[in-house]
Amino acid sequence: MLTIYSPVQRTHQPAYVVKQGERSASFDVPERVDSILAALNKQELGPVIAPDDAGLEPIRAVHDTGMIEYLMTAYERQNAEAGVSTPVFPTFFPPPGQRRHPGCFEGQKGFYCTNMGVPINEDTWKATLASAHCAIAGARHMQSGESCVYALCRPPGHHAGPDFFGGYCYLNNAAIAAQVLRENGERVAILDIDYHHGNGTQAIFYAESGAWYGSLHIDPGTDYPFFAGYADEVGIGAGEGTNWNVPLSPGTGQGRYLSALKTLLVRLTAFNPQWLIVSAGFDTYIGDPIGTFQLTTAGFNKVGRRIRTLNIPTLVVQEGGYCIPDLGRNVAAFLKGLADFKQSD
Amino acid sequence: MLTIYSPVQRTHQPAYVVKQGERSASFDVPERVDSILAALNKQELGPVIAPDDAGLEPIRAVHDTGMIEYLMTAYERQNAEAGVSTPVFPTFFPPPGQRRHPGCFEGQKGFYCTNMGVPINEDTWKATLASAHCAIAGARHMQSGESCVYALCRPPGHHAGPDFFGGYCYLNNAAIAAQVLRENGERVAILDIDYHHGNGTQAIFYAESGAWYGSLHIDPGTDYPFFAGYADEVGIGAGEGTNWNVPLSPGTGQGRYLSALKTLLVRLTAFNPQWLIVSAGFDTYIGDPIGTFQLTTAGFNKVGRRIRTLNIPTLVVQEGGYCIPDLGRNVAAFLKGLADFKQSD
Repeated sequence: MLTIYSPVQRTHQPAYVVKQGERSASFDVPERVDSILAALNKQELGPVIAPDDAGLEPIRAVHDTGMIEYLMTAYERQNAEAGVSTPVFPTFFPPPGQRRHPGCFEGQKGFYCTNMGVPINEDTWKATLASAHCAIAGARHMQSGESCVYALCRPPGHHAGPDFFGGYCYLNNAAIAAQVLRENGERVAILDIDYHHGNGTQAIFYAESGAWYGSLHIDPGTDYPFFAGYADEVGIGAGEGTNWNVPLSPGTGQGRYLSALKTLLVRLTAFNPQWLIVSAGFDTYIGDPIGTFQLTTAGFNKVGRRIRTLNIPTLVVQEGGYCIPDLGRNVAAFLKGLADFKQSD
Repeated sequence: MLTIYSPVQRTHQPAYVVKQGERSASFDVPERVDSILAALNKQELGPVIAPDDAGLEPIRAVHDTGMIEYLMTAYERQNAEAGVSTPVFPTFFPPPGQRRHPGCFEGQKGFYCTNMGVPINEDTWKATLASAHCAIAGARHMQSGESCVYALCRPPGHHAGPDFFGGYCYLNNAAIAAQVLRENGERVAILDIDYHHGNGTQAIFYAESGAWYGSLHIDPGTDYPFFAGYADEVGIGAGEGTNWNVPLSPGTGQGRYLSALKTLLVRLTAFNPQWLIVSAGFDTYIGDPIGTFQLTTAGFNKVGRRIRTLNIPTLVVQEGGYCIPDLGRNVAAFLKGLADFKQSD
């Protein structure tokens, strides 16, 4: 299996985020990537190649131009205008019903950013761009005939919407890849197995009939992203019926999880997509410091094998997963389940 | 002139706010009230009386029940559920188009709160309630025949909307008083002379034909509240034409300010209100640490005298103003201009 990764992504090293008004360690550290790369190598999962520079065009097909410009320039603008070199954090957010775009930098900081978990450091933009380029390269390799590619994206993407970002995510890698795969009108399904609902991905495709989004995740009434991800969010307009949220209770075990996955895959199959993108988070792991679900390494292998039975060309896009010692072997177990055609289900 | 104030308001002592991800001193300190009370006493501006307990009913006439409940219980809930005793700060805010009400406390923290400048401490709710009760008592005294009353509200209120709060404000004292004064269908005008646009007040009355809101303030494209307060926000539906925003440039001088006030008072007069409420902020002062306008103490006297020429019964509701050494004399100069019938304009 082909893996796409750029060492530039490692330069994004958030020193801290802000939680409940206090500095707090970020779980999205570069060591996550080290764990994954070591496991891919050890388990001989195939070559790791760097992505081509795909420019901004495929990103503009998903995200607001103003937000891209903001992400690209925020760190420098803060240094130039405010004379500081700390990471960029917002302070003021748009109230309900009031969201005019302000001319000044301080206002723009809260216009796009939705929480205190996405600081912008000196290297954030270049790592984010490289991460998006991995997803784009993955999509291009699929179009060239690969049946299964792994885009080792970091920072992750599924909490980034058309004109907002948050929750460790700046650009929506999975959605950007989906738009590349849809360029000739193909039908694309995005299956999100991260612990958290991908509220950004949902927002991007909510009114689209040609893109399907389905997610298994912690009940947003109990955990991030809180304000979306409920079961009654089914899409609107032409997109009605193409959005499937399956919120699960805190502490959900592997049996219950796999059963919910099976049902969701039936919905996915009914959509009859030409391409499948998996937003693959591993914070559903029993040992994850953020999540509460009970999946084991063997469980991730089963999830991969279940998805393989769909027999749809599949691009895997890395999302969350924060148990660094076990993250690599969980990713590898999943990818092996997904790609190893010698195994049977 | 009658002043309404409760010593309970002094108990709200925010140890810090969060700016750009860092702890920062709050400008809304209890010493603001000390400065005002000392000046009122020195300049013999009349009695200071405590408000009656007006309960929650007049507050529910303006604010969402869920938000009131949240403000009332947040500090205790944080202690009980998260086991900490730091002030309550939100971390996650609703993205555009996604604002489901989450069941859990952590989600609710960002559902109502719009920025990092409104920590909830142990005494915040009781001080906030006392502040709102001052405004209500002021309105009741007006209904009993007073022609000019000063509600020494703190915390201030004009950034609190129907279901949001922010910018040092938790409940909208001026709007609550306005609803009391409107109880028999009277027409009420709210003139906001704080340095910042009163985005909460605007939101509350934006679709109302019987309440007029007019504000002179710093261009929101350059300063808080950033996302509302522009000149083209004129009201909607039945309220179209009853909202007047006059954004002024950074550094606006007294001449330009008084001229803009004169124009705004013409619009106010055309509305023909039975009652006038002044959202009185003094952060337009030349020495204010937050504002950039150039008003002097004598200028505030002129503003008061201009408003007096309208000859409408007037309730003054305290909003911002952070130059503590001069705040009291600025308030007194304004009130004297407004109420001293021996002076002529």
